[in-house]
Amino acid sequence: MTPALEALYRGFEDELLIPLWTEIGDLMPAHPRSKAAAHLWRWQSLRRLAEQAGEIVPVGRGGERRAIALANPSLGGKPFATPTLWAAIQYLLPGEDAPEHRHTQHAFRFVVEGSGVWTVVGGDAVPMNRGDFLPQAGWNWHAHHNATDEPMAWIDGLDIPFQWTNEAQFFEFGRDEISGAERITPERARSEQLWGHPGLRPLGVTHSTPGSPLLSYKWEHTDRALSDQLDLERQGYAGTVEPGHAAVRFVDPSTGGDVLPTIRAEFHRVTRGSVTAPVRETGSSVYQVFDGSGRVTVGDLTWSVTRGDLFVVPSWQPLSIVSEAGDTDSDSGALDLFRFSDAPIFEALRIHRTDHSDHTDKD
Amino acid sequence: MTPALEALYRGFEDELLIPLWTEIGDLMPAHPRSKAAAHLWRWQSLRRLAEQAGEIVPVGRGGERRAIALANPSLGGKPFATPTLWAAIQYLLPGEDAPEHRHTQHAFRFVVEGSGVWTVVGGDAVPMNRGDFLPQAGWNWHAHHNATDEPMAWIDGLDIPFQWTNEAQFFEFGRDEISGAERITPERARSEQLWGHPGLRPLGVTHSTPGSPLLSYKWEHTDRALSDQLDLERQGYAGTVEPGHAAVRFVDPSTGGDVLPTIRAEFHRVTRGSVTAPVRETGSSVYQVFDGSGRVTVGDLTWSVTRGDLFVVPSWQPLSIVSEAGDTDSDSGALDLFRFSDAPIFEALRIHRTDHSDHTDKD
Amino acid sequence: MTPALEALYRGFEDELLIPLWTEIGDLMPAHPRSKAAAHLWRWQSLRRLAEQAGEIVPVGRGGERRAIALANPSLGGKPFATPTLWAAIQYLLPGEDAPEHRHTQHAFRFVVEGSGVWTVVGGDAVPMNRGDFLPQAGWNWHAHHNATDEPMAWIDGLDIPFQWTNEAQFFEFGRDEISGAERITPERARSEQLWGHPGLRPLGVTHSTPGSPLLSYKWEHTDRALSDQLDLERQGYAGTVEPGHAAVRFVDPSTGGDVLPTIRAEFHRVTRGSVTAPVRETGSSVYQVFDGSGRVTVGDLTWSVTRGDLFVVPSWQPLSIVSEAGDTDSDSGALDLFRFSDAPIFEALRIHRTDHSDHTDKD
Amino acid sequence: MTPALEALYRGFEDELLIPLWTEIGDLMPAHPRSKAAAHLWRWQSLRRLAEQAGEIVPVGRGGERRAIALANPSLGGKPFATPTLWAAIQYLLPGEDAPEHRHTQHAFRFVVEGSGVWTVVGGDAVPMNRGDFLPQAGWNWHAHHNATDEPMAWIDGLDIPFQWTNEAQFFEFGRDEISGAERITPERARSEQLWGHPGLRPLGVTHSTPGSPLLSYKWEHTDRALSDQLDLERQGYAGTVEPGHAAVRFVDPSTGGDVLPTIRAEFHRVTRGSVTAPVRETGSSVYQVFDGSGRVTVGDLTWSVTRGDLFVVPSWQPLSIVSEAGDTDSDSGALDLFRFSDAPIFEALRIHRTDHSDHTDKD
Repeated sequence: MTPALEALYRGFEDELLIPLWTEIGDLMPAHPRSKAAAHLWRWQSLRRLAEQAGEIVPVGRGGERRAIALANPSLGGKPFATPTLWAAIQYLLPGEDAPEHRHTQHAFRFVVEGSGVWTVVGGDAVPMNRGDFLPQAGWNWHAHHNATDEPMAWIDGLDIPFQWTNEAQFFEFGRDEISGAERITPERARSEQLWGHPGLRPLGVTHSTPGSPLLSYKWEHTDRALSDQLDLERQGYAGTVEPGHAAVRFVDPSTGGDVLPTIRAEFHRVTRGSVTAPVRETGSSVYQVFDGSGRVTVGDLTWSVTRGDLFVVPSWQPLSIVSEAGDTDSDSGALDLFRFSDAPIFEALRIHRTDHSDHTDKD
Repeated sequence: MTPALEALYRGFEDELLIPLWTEIGDLMPAHPRSKAAAHLWRWQSLRRLAEQAGEIVPVGRGGERRAIALANPSLGGKPFATPTLWAAIQYLLPGEDAPEHRHTQHAFRFVVEGSGVWTVVGGDAVPMNRGDFLPQAGWNWHAHHNATDEPMAWIDGLDIPFQWTNEAQFFEFGRDEISGAERITPERARSEQLWGHPGLRPLGVTHSTPGSPLLSYKWEHTDRALSDQLDLERQGYAGTVEPGHAAVRFVDPSTGGDVLPTIRAEFHRVTRGSVTAPVRETGSSVYQVFDGSGRVTVGDLTWSVTRGDLFVVPSWQPLSIVSEAGDTDSDSGALDLFRFSDAPIFEALRIHRTDHSDHTDKD
Repeated sequence: MTPALEALYRGFEDELLIPLWTEIGDLMPAHPRSKAAAHLWRWQSLRRLAEQAGEIVPVGRGGERRAIALANPSLGGKPFATPTLWAAIQYLLPGEDAPEHRHTQHAFRFVVEGSGVWTVVGGDAVPMNRGDFLPQAGWNWHAHHNATDEPMAWIDGLDIPFQWTNEAQFFEFGRDEISGAERITPERARSEQLWGHPGLRPLGVTHSTPGSPLLSYKWEHTDRALSDQLDLERQGYAGTVEPGHAAVRFVDPSTGGDVLPTIRAEFHRVTRGSVTAPVRETGSSVYQVFDGSGRVTVGDLTWSVTRGDLFVVPSWQPLSIVSEAGDTDSDSGALDLFRFSDAPIFEALRIHRTDHSDHTDKD
Repeated sequence: MTPALEALYRGFEDELLIPLWTEIGDLMPAHPRSKAAAHLWRWQSLRRLAEQAGEIVPVGRGGERRAIALANPSLGGKPFATPTLWAAIQYLLPGEDAPEHRHTQHAFRFVVEGSGVWTVVGGDAVPMNRGDFLPQAGWNWHAHHNATDEPMAWIDGLDIPFQWTNEAQFFEFGRDEISGAERITPERARSEQLWGHPGLRPLGVTHSTPGSPLLSYKWEHTDRALSDQLDLERQGYAGTVEPGHAAVRFVDPSTGGDVLPTIRAEFHRVTRGSVTAPVRETGSSVYQVFDGSGRVTVGDLTWSVTRGDLFVVPSWQPLSIVSEAGDTDSDSGALDLFRFSDAPIFEALRIHRTDHSDHTDKD
């Protein structure tokens, strides 16, 4: 470096300036090279640590939730599963309440085990059981209560990293106690009574909201929709994504679009022995194995996965899934996977890309 | 009229011109004064004439359908229920086929009695049972077949008058015989297997269509959605349109919008003893009583109605409904009404108005 | 006809029913066969009759406008240019006022000759000069005033037939006199000051309206846009619709979409010697020759046309235009045509079709 | 901290987990507390350093551009003006070329001084003069060339930080030399000939693009639009944002929406002596003083600003502007400000908020 160039760079530094030409490789790569790593978290470990937290850490105002977040090893020690997505295990003991609050972060719960807890959203008590998906768009008051005799664990997904980076977040505390009427665990939430009927919209609801008005997507519907697709495939009709691979997207029944403005949620079923073709996409995803076992390849890494395991697919890394019997599991079922991603962000801003080509030899 | 004015008007006539000033009262009234009349057709008479037609008139290529249309007495002898809507009873004998064709007119079937017939739409056999609603957007191939031992009757609704007036219609004949594989009556249509799950969208379907991809809205879902709204009302929660009046709209699950581009379809339930507040709207509707009995007031006319009766509500005429026991009917149920209207036309063009005020004394 | 069939048909008649099978050919043709005729009105005759009306018929409250409408010879004596569109010459003497009113019918003015009149829309005085296009969405108060020493004539286009048939129209009388401040003829309307700058939106306007907020599209812009397209063509670049055929659509600057919810307006320039390829479209159009002369073929009819002439293109009839020197006109310019159509109706309802194929031998 | 808690936290660390309860204050604050600082960069310093870079640093393939970026002092040494926006001065010597490339990052140029350079976008040479705004949506090929005898400097704005964080970016090198035909500086770009006419859309262009098809927003239009608003204000009509404050948004003429999917661009004029009311908004902005001088208050900071100065307004910090004569400037003009922000991101995702209340005493 010449003295003149050195002087120039010092001048830049003094004036809080940085030239493009030294940074362009990092800032404008040929394609996304994610700062996040592909990574797998084992449910067994998560579950164990959540139980220990249940014994030691109370849940209450201030801390708000006994939630333990996946911290991607390549994201600088932040509790971020990906650059945009938060994923945590939340754990609630019998009789415990997680206090009411609201925030602009869009959120959901997905129940991988247990049942009997409910989430009260805007005064509507929503029951939670294995396989249920509960979206909750930003700025809705919500609290949780465990009305059973057993501890319960579920997955929280939010766009905390996205809103934290882009600085759009607001937060308010709600009531410290939720009222008696809201404490009765119903079989269905009121929002399900209004919005949970296929292709039917209640005429009495005239306002619209940013996210889905349906607060619970029950497992029985998801399971049946996937079975139906595979049934069509067996009969020789279109319906699955690819052979042996059925999938549904959770959508807002009032728009047909994504269930939350920033988060896409899907459920995938891969039949025993099937392999999904590699796909890569801009933006990141988190998957949780709901049932079955198999092998998952993300970029250069391959893991064996089983019930409850969570893994991250960073931007533009190809993903392929193989459904197969696990080491200790002899059942004959399919591999069932819950997925959430940040795709709605990229689609809304028209910077979304998907690549279905074989990219074995591509960089 | 002066000779000069007479000469002027003769000049207009010679040149195919008409002045605004003599016509403005008719052309630009203070509010819509419908050319259509409010009118009631009795199901009993319709049913009887359809049966007679079944004995005399064959169904086949050319005539295409044994459909008998409501001809509004104020629409100049045209088979138009309203200026925009066609409503007909269609009647099919055991073993009969209505041949395949397609047209740009948007259509639906609504089954007020019978079961076991199916409509094959684009190769997908859709079963038809009492209470089922089957939308069918324009330009889909379709045929009907009665696979039972009984004659069957249902209601066809189309936008034939709208497309006839505005001249957008195309029509093509299809196959004369539908294939064996399509002749098996399924319990559910393939479109129901793909799209009939609340809030779930099949990832394997990537194209979009002008109308709903869901080809059947089964009665069990409609019935439950209405019961759920009344259940919420009984518990003190919002959900119904007004006290004792539950209602759902049939919507396209891929958009949340109307099931057809030109036709809105709804189902209303008015509990015994309830009265709906008068409402008037631009555009016209056809109602069919699905169950129960009551009194209906449209503008200056009031009728007692019972199962199967059809009536027309012209543009801007106030409608009010009273649910009550009929003369010969002692059941304790509600008054159930199927409705279809041309509202999507007016909403799309931003000329839709609704008036909920009391207009007893208004002209 | 058998006695049984006769009895059946009598039964239908008694009950106000009409069978499909006798009507299907008319109701559901293979393609639109327009009830409207292709027809040409000569500007010379229109102009002459408008002048005579100016001498005899006063303009004022009740008749509202001295407007004389094209009455398509095949539309049953109604003052309708096409099944959906109204087209009239409006004529105002020096100092005359056409009183204020408003209506839901969407409207525009197009000035083929003269200048100096203005239309006051919602208190905004909009000057009118040759070539200017003034859209005016439904339910805006408006009046006209001739502030010059000369009579003035222009074309009014509205969706009167569409709203009359479909029964959505409302009308209100306004003030009998417009105020002094509104009577000063400005060079530009206030709406032009706000919205008449390319690609620039005023931040101070926060509400949206059904039609364009820009109330005047001045000829100088239209002319230049067309010249620019032909200039690009000469340089070998894309820009024109086809060789020698430049065209622009008048659009709402706040949406980029059609200027009115029910009416599309365009301006076409065909260079001397050029021929446009035949196109047919669902829906109807009215054209007015703005300048130049040529030959126009609509379906089986061909006319020589010159400045001011108006003609109708019915649904699905192919149109082709040849630009050529007229009998008495030796100028070397292009053939300039203003066009308006009902295409937004069909596009909004997803029943629009365009056919660019050669259909010489088609029915 | 108890040993048990310590053990728990070590367990979290081992498994790459982080609890919510220790992080919630930072992750979910009551309102956005921006990681970015409000900061001012002086044009004089920027300009001087750019000139020095021009003497020392060549422009060419690899470094791609002689662009020097604002590096917000609170964003960890990254060349990011805000968490989402890149702002740089680009400097090109007479005869120099900046080589062709394309990238998914949305970009624009804004010219604060000089003229005669052009940017070739997809083969269309776009001239650049003081006050011109040149948007350029992602994935368009583009290069720059200085065809004059003077060096030239302008501002580049891009969503580099947003796409870098969220990992959606792609980049490709183009031709090393642009062809002769593209090297002729036109008076207007071809895209201006097609799209630069108010309210007029070329019928020959049938495809749509993610950002504006208009590649230059010339100063003369912007200036006139602002003058027109102030003229309306003087006459007592609505038009300005608030007294003495005119503003326009640069919009895509094919949609009326923001000119780029991720970037909003506006121009504000504050008349001498006027003060704008404090506003705070989610998301961040960069302003550049185009002309005049004044005082700007962002949160707790107040700066005197003059031509060319750039400053950053972080998320949710209130901004107020005072137009006044500067120290060395005796002209009587207004304070003219160019602004760009990331608001379209927040609006698309429905997490945008604006607060016009007085928040002097708020935290």
